[in-house]
Amino acid sequence: MSEPAAPGALMAAEIAEQPAVLAALLARAREFRDTAAALARRGHRFVLIAARGSSDHAALYAKYLVEIRLGLPAGLVSPSTMTLYGSRPDLAGVLFVAVSQSGASPDLAESLAVARGCGATTLAVTNAADSALAATAELAVELGAGAERSVAATKSYTAQLLALHLLFGFLGGGPDPAAAAAALPEAAHRTLEAAGGAHAAAARYRYAERLVTTGRGYSYPTAREAALKLMETSYLVAHAFSAADLMHGPVATVDRRVPVIAVVSAGPGGASTGPVVERLRGTGADVLVVGGAAGPDGLPVAADGIGEELLPVLEILPLQQLAWRLALDRGEDPDRPRGLAKVTRTR
Amino acid sequence: MSEPAAPGALMAAEIAEQPAVLAALLARAREFRDTAAALARRGHRFVLIAARGSSDHAALYAKYLVEIRLGLPAGLVSPSTMTLYGSRPDLAGVLFVAVSQSGASPDLAESLAVARGCGATTLAVTNAADSALAATAELAVELGAGAERSVAATKSYTAQLLALHLLFGFLGGGPDPAAAAAALPEAAHRTLEAAGGAHAAAARYRYAERLVTTGRGYSYPTAREAALKLMETSYLVAHAFSAADLMHGPVATVDRRVPVIAVVSAGPGGASTGPVVERLRGTGADVLVVGGAAGPDGLPVAADGIGEELLPVLEILPLQQLAWRLALDRGEDPDRPRGLAKVTRTR
Repeated sequence: MSEPAAPGALMAAEIAEQPAVLAALLARAREFRDTAAALARRGHRFVLIAARGSSDHAALYAKYLVEIRLGLPAGLVSPSTMTLYGSRPDLAGVLFVAVSQSGASPDLAESLAVARGCGATTLAVTNAADSALAATAELAVELGAGAERSVAATKSYTAQLLALHLLFGFLGGGPDPAAAAAALPEAAHRTLEAAGGAHAAAARYRYAERLVTTGRGYSYPTAREAALKLMETSYLVAHAFSAADLMHGPVATVDRRVPVIAVVSAGPGGASTGPVVERLRGTGADVLVVGGAAGPDGLPVAADGIGEELLPVLEILPLQQLAWRLALDRGEDPDRPRGLAKVTRTR
Repeated sequence: MSEPAAPGALMAAEIAEQPAVLAALLARAREFRDTAAALARRGHRFVLIAARGSSDHAALYAKYLVEIRLGLPAGLVSPSTMTLYGSRPDLAGVLFVAVSQSGASPDLAESLAVARGCGATTLAVTNAADSALAATAELAVELGAGAERSVAATKSYTAQLLALHLLFGFLGGGPDPAAAAAALPEAAHRTLEAAGGAHAAAARYRYAERLVTTGRGYSYPTAREAALKLMETSYLVAHAFSAADLMHGPVATVDRRVPVIAVVSAGPGGASTGPVVERLRGTGADVLVVGGAAGPDGLPVAADGIGEELLPVLEILPLQQLAWRLALDRGEDPDRPRGLAKVTRTR
């Protein structure tokens, strides 16, 4: 906000910080274990997750974790039912998690306060320990990603994914989630080093007006976050669909002029997306594959030793680089998108 | 499927049938009351709703109803967690509702079967009493909308909204939901009669390449369904955002070349969307207002005597007419979109 900087300098720096941010978060794994233990003592029958913007994609990732790892039903919160319509549901035995970089969005803090009043256990996952959201919640964990100054969220997003993985991994009581993530900072470092592919992809999309992203299972949040990142930095109309939904209508709008980015990694989500990629390629569509299953003509990630559950932390990295490079190529400043503020004060 | 027809003839006929379909559904309100009574005897602590495509927007509408009218937390199902990842959550005391026109999507039937095995009460809302989905569910209600032959869903969508309103209205035990909807068929008829506005809007968008739709609360599902309808019939890139989310990033992509359709009706959702419309207009954006709050330069609906909860049934009508007219103006056949089948067999 203060000194002038080269266009995109903030976003580039924050993208590059991610391996260190992930390592710092892992070094604090004990805090997440303790919070998970406090949650476990309550016992929950259901998990609600509230978020907006990029954090909403981390929330979607958490929904998959909760359903698959904890075996609990989960839902994403529509804050308006509580903040605009005055809904006061019985939330006894419900874990209500709010995910927000700034912790400053009034409707998130308000819906968390309502949820707490309705009997939910409330947990804030923020990058701002002194935020209204963290103060309102019964329990809070901090990302510790350091100040995020670029309007486009990068390091706070991957930190949210890892934090949610640690929390729900410890809560699920399976294999140690910190051990499972031990190789992640180094894998993130190696993935970011291979930036050439992302820059080549930016050249390829230089004059694209719209783009479709797709993925399924754990990789679906990556597809959504990639679309948002491209939209907010490069003003490219990027539309994310789960690979299943894509076949239910939107495929009609995909033709040779609409590039597709498909996030395909090892695991059931990727296995289910593969045939969709084949079908799209059969229609002549230009498909770029990102993730563990990408060949050298795609955007691979350094996935060795990383389980499917954690791949979203890596998959988004070349897509952040792509969004950054494409914005600069198009003469935009990805740090300061037009018409956007860092904190959106939705009510 | 059999005899040739003029382009768009099926969709036009099915749009026009809606007042009669709604009236026929209301005449069977007792069936919905009986099903609601059977559900009430079980008691539920949580509602999960599964759907794809247009039905997913009816499911989102139902989520608002459940949270606001029943005061129960609700979530939309990600079928892949059960069908691809083998999640087997404890669903005792959970009501699992699957919404599907055809009832033929394999992953919906499979996730409903899994949910039933995990202890949920299962309910199918379909237009096909003899479908796999209806056969798999413990309870089933039928839309009775008659065969829907156009690929673009119209009458099955509004029938789903009314069916879900009746079900959850009876289950909530408040004012008689059938009485609240008594004026709806006539209101739908009057709304459809004023097709001129929709046709003028189609002329205005004739050469648009992309478009943004927005709304909040009960009107947000309308914004999403309108975007899907425009995409699948007119190959226009239509992107739906809740009015709150729009301010969190995507607003950067809205400029004078991107028309916005804002669904604004009476009630808290519309009251919250109004300022967003003003802000967009302040940036020079071309905003068309649809719904109860639309003036004569927008697409108003015949909302007299209809509560906010039921307005989505009316709001979508001029948007269906717009999608149909725009497709024809652009030389497309809205009955048979490229690359789309009526039933998508996602696994």
